[in-house]
Amino acid sequence: MTRTFNFKIIWFTLGALLVLEAAFMLLSSGVAFLYKESDALPILYAALITLGFAGLGILFGRKAEKKLGKREGYIIVALVWIVFSLFGMLPFYLSGAIPSITDAYFETMSGFTTTGSSILTDVEVLSHGLHFWRSLTHWLGGMGIIVLSLAILPFFGIGGMSLYTAEATGATYEKLRPKIKDTAKLLWGIYVLLTALEALCLSLLGMDVFEAICHSFSTLATGGYSTRNAGMAAFSPAIQYVVTIFMFLAGINFSMLYFLFKGKINRLKEDEELHWYVGAVVVLTVVMTLGLLFLDKSYPATDVEKAFRDSAFVVVTLMTTTGFSGVDYTLWHPLLLCIAIFLLFTGASAGSTAGGMKWSRLAFMFKNVRCEFKRLIHPNAIIPVRMNGKVVNSSVANGIVAFLFVYMVTVLGGTIVFTFFGLPLSEAFGATATSIGNVGPGLGLSGPAGNFALMPIPVKWMMSFFMLLGRLELFTVLLIFTPSFWGK
Amino acid sequence: MTRTFNFKIIWFTLGALLVLEAAFMLLSSGVAFLYKESDALPILYAALITLGFAGLGILFGRKAEKKLGKREGYIIVALVWIVFSLFGMLPFYLSGAIPSITDAYFETMSGFTTTGSSILTDVEVLSHGLHFWRSLTHWLGGMGIIVLSLAILPFFGIGGMSLYTAEATGATYEKLRPKIKDTAKLLWGIYVLLTALEALCLSLLGMDVFEAICHSFSTLATGGYSTRNAGMAAFSPAIQYVVTIFMFLAGINFSMLYFLFKGKINRLKEDEELHWYVGAVVVLTVVMTLGLLFLDKSYPATDVEKAFRDSAFVVVTLMTTTGFSGVDYTLWHPLLLCIAIFLLFTGASAGSTAGGMKWSRLAFMFKNVRCEFKRLIHPNAIIPVRMNGKVVNSSVANGIVAFLFVYMVTVLGGTIVFTFFGLPLSEAFGATATSIGNVGPGLGLSGPAGNFALMPIPVKWMMSFFMLLGRLELFTVLLIFTPSFWGK
Repeated sequence: MTRTFNFKIIWFTLGALLVLEAAFMLLSSGVAFLYKESDALPILYAALITLGFAGLGILFGRKAEKKLGKREGYIIVALVWIVFSLFGMLPFYLSGAIPSITDAYFETMSGFTTTGSSILTDVEVLSHGLHFWRSLTHWLGGMGIIVLSLAILPFFGIGGMSLYTAEATGATYEKLRPKIKDTAKLLWGIYVLLTALEALCLSLLGMDVFEAICHSFSTLATGGYSTRNAGMAAFSPAIQYVVTIFMFLAGINFSMLYFLFKGKINRLKEDEELHWYVGAVVVLTVVMTLGLLFLDKSYPATDVEKAFRDSAFVVVTLMTTTGFSGVDYTLWHPLLLCIAIFLLFTGASAGSTAGGMKWSRLAFMFKNVRCEFKRLIHPNAIIPVRMNGKVVNSSVANGIVAFLFVYMVTVLGGTIVFTFFGLPLSEAFGATATSIGNVGPGLGLSGPAGNFALMPIPVKWMMSFFMLLGRLELFTVLLIFTPSFWGK
Repeated sequence: MTRTFNFKIIWFTLGALLVLEAAFMLLSSGVAFLYKESDALPILYAALITLGFAGLGILFGRKAEKKLGKREGYIIVALVWIVFSLFGMLPFYLSGAIPSITDAYFETMSGFTTTGSSILTDVEVLSHGLHFWRSLTHWLGGMGIIVLSLAILPFFGIGGMSLYTAEATGATYEKLRPKIKDTAKLLWGIYVLLTALEALCLSLLGMDVFEAICHSFSTLATGGYSTRNAGMAAFSPAIQYVVTIFMFLAGINFSMLYFLFKGKINRLKEDEELHWYVGAVVVLTVVMTLGLLFLDKSYPATDVEKAFRDSAFVVVTLMTTTGFSGVDYTLWHPLLLCIAIFLLFTGASAGSTAGGMKWSRLAFMFKNVRCEFKRLIHPNAIIPVRMNGKVVNSSVANGIVAFLFVYMVTVLGGTIVFTFFGLPLSEAFGATATSIGNVGPGLGLSGPAGNFALMPIPVKWMMSFFMLLGRLELFTVLLIFTPSFWGK
């Protein structure tokens, strides 16, 4: 039996969402206009084209039954990122700033998925309008993922996204507001507030207001696009500290940030993932600092403050999967580089804008090991893993395990395929890990001091796919490729 | 409450086992004597010292209550490999062949754990007596020191089960016979038979009889020590094929080999792990061959037979964790190198002499992913993973997951520590992966064309520990370090 899909609702939804994208493009065109840049027109065209297709979608799907099934939901979620990137690349392409479709699509997908890998060798030649749009792709994607992970996907029961907290996240959300719509608004509120706050801080510390806004978009989305070629190295230490702090905040579950704003500190104390995340940041920053001071002979050993600043920046920018450039840790001592590569994988918290594996999943794995020791000594006792005081049931546990395994297998498979296209092993590995983790910098030529311009074309397309895969926590996308999804 | 341990039984058991080791040393001394080598005497001394300590152990523990608890079992199993290596290094040390205690211990532990990593830069200068002992360490360790003692020493019939389960944690030897002693005898019978068969084949193909015996010891144990510096490259293609076939057989669960001998082919057809193992060998050999012919520009593209032979050899020697040298795959195309590195991890079958993760565990992980897709589409259905037609219960599943996670964390941790001692990242990674997987060759200077002579002393000791950890499937060793093991 082949199930029938409500395709019309898919057209309608995508059309409606494209109106939103067109609106933000118009805004970017306005910015270019304001700065009297010639890019105002191409961006306007891009917005109009997008609006046109949006209209077609709405028209074609206007008579859709207003019922959204689970399968339609999966399809929309996966398609919207692809469609947004297809239209979102138009400003870059039509303006001539990125003359290759492959590159323009890569740059836009990298934006929306908050990866931040760039094919631009010189970002400083971009107009204000394009910089604004480029940072906006981050910001829209980052928010999208928050709303998706905390308000929408728990209803699909996606174990991958909402993890062990399949119920817990739902519960957390329900306590925020009874309706999805209200929760989404609340989360947007926090997001906008923090973005504004960072932009303010950066401006006060002397950053140009326009650049402050762009970098705030990038930071809160844990994206990584900068207006400068040197990334954060172009700015003062004070600015680097502020950005590090806001990246750190963006790596926290937004429900927890809500409780923080509400002063419900107890809720934060109870959240185990938060402990792991904060603990990992602190411990690894200390290790990195000590490593730079005592182990790394190429590093000026006397400057403790700089060692700490660089360490905190690298740990937070990688763990939150932001990936701002500015410090080239690939030149550091192998021990520190090894930690950095590890951080390409961990990610930060579930329900944040960060990608990667997420600490809740890693915490579950560590706790399961502890339980296993007990099980070996008491083979007849039933010793389940508990998170936040609740037993993690086996279907959630299986979901975590499946996620982590698919993640590793994808990294292995991607590395193998990328070497086929001629990349050296370490670069192939870095490109796969950074794209599936939505981090940004890879290793070697595509490391924090480089970019992805020279990657072979098939690699760029595959990386774009991995970015989407990682952003939607693998299963949302992969499920669509299974026969049983289509009811066969 | 602190539990009391039956320490006397531990002394007694270790003493009894050392008698066995001393006996095999005497045999090696006999070999040296036969070849009129001056090493006969130092090896004899080593045997006598071992025998002396064996006597002390038996004397001290003679009044032990003849009851072997689970915890004592774990301690004995972990200790016996360490104690065997401590005495087993004496022939190398007393003869002056390996003048450093670190190196002698490393070489012996590498032997008993069937790792096959060597610190010798020139193995061809070793006497026949030492070559024999070196290969014997492989052979004794391969089937398991404990399984050997179960088969030979009647005393162990009593508490055999707790030792057996501690040594063969992950292994799924079926109970071929109602009594553990009889099962052990059967397994050793197959082991001896296959060893003799290989030695016969190699001799018939022109290998020196002594070398044929040594290489058969190495092959069936999936060890990797050779009598030649060039490893398998020193021999004819026919010999290379025979060794590849016997390595392949040694990577199969010995219960399955028993069924093969008995002609119960149906049992082999039912065993899923066997399918995965055989499938992986076939697929990867084909991929490697094609890769060498069409991708690797440095490889002579015309010689299809050699490409196939080298590919099959590399895939089997790595997957079975034998690690014979002879083909330097680190010079191959990055795609092929990437597969080779992957094979440092997989291992072959549970219940074989191979180390590594084992295909049964990997198969479980793959099947869980398949189930996860179904679970997402049918969230209310309970969809457990089945292996060999049986549901894998959650305690087994948790054990597999815990094992794989500890494995990965150990590789990460080892890599970090080894970089601390000055190794480059890839070499640190290779040394950790190869030692915990009991494979043999690492990467870089310690790759298949090199050896571990230049490793820093602390790295050699840690590698020895990782070898033990991997050989005993992590938890047998790690459990001893947990407070709850000691009843606190």
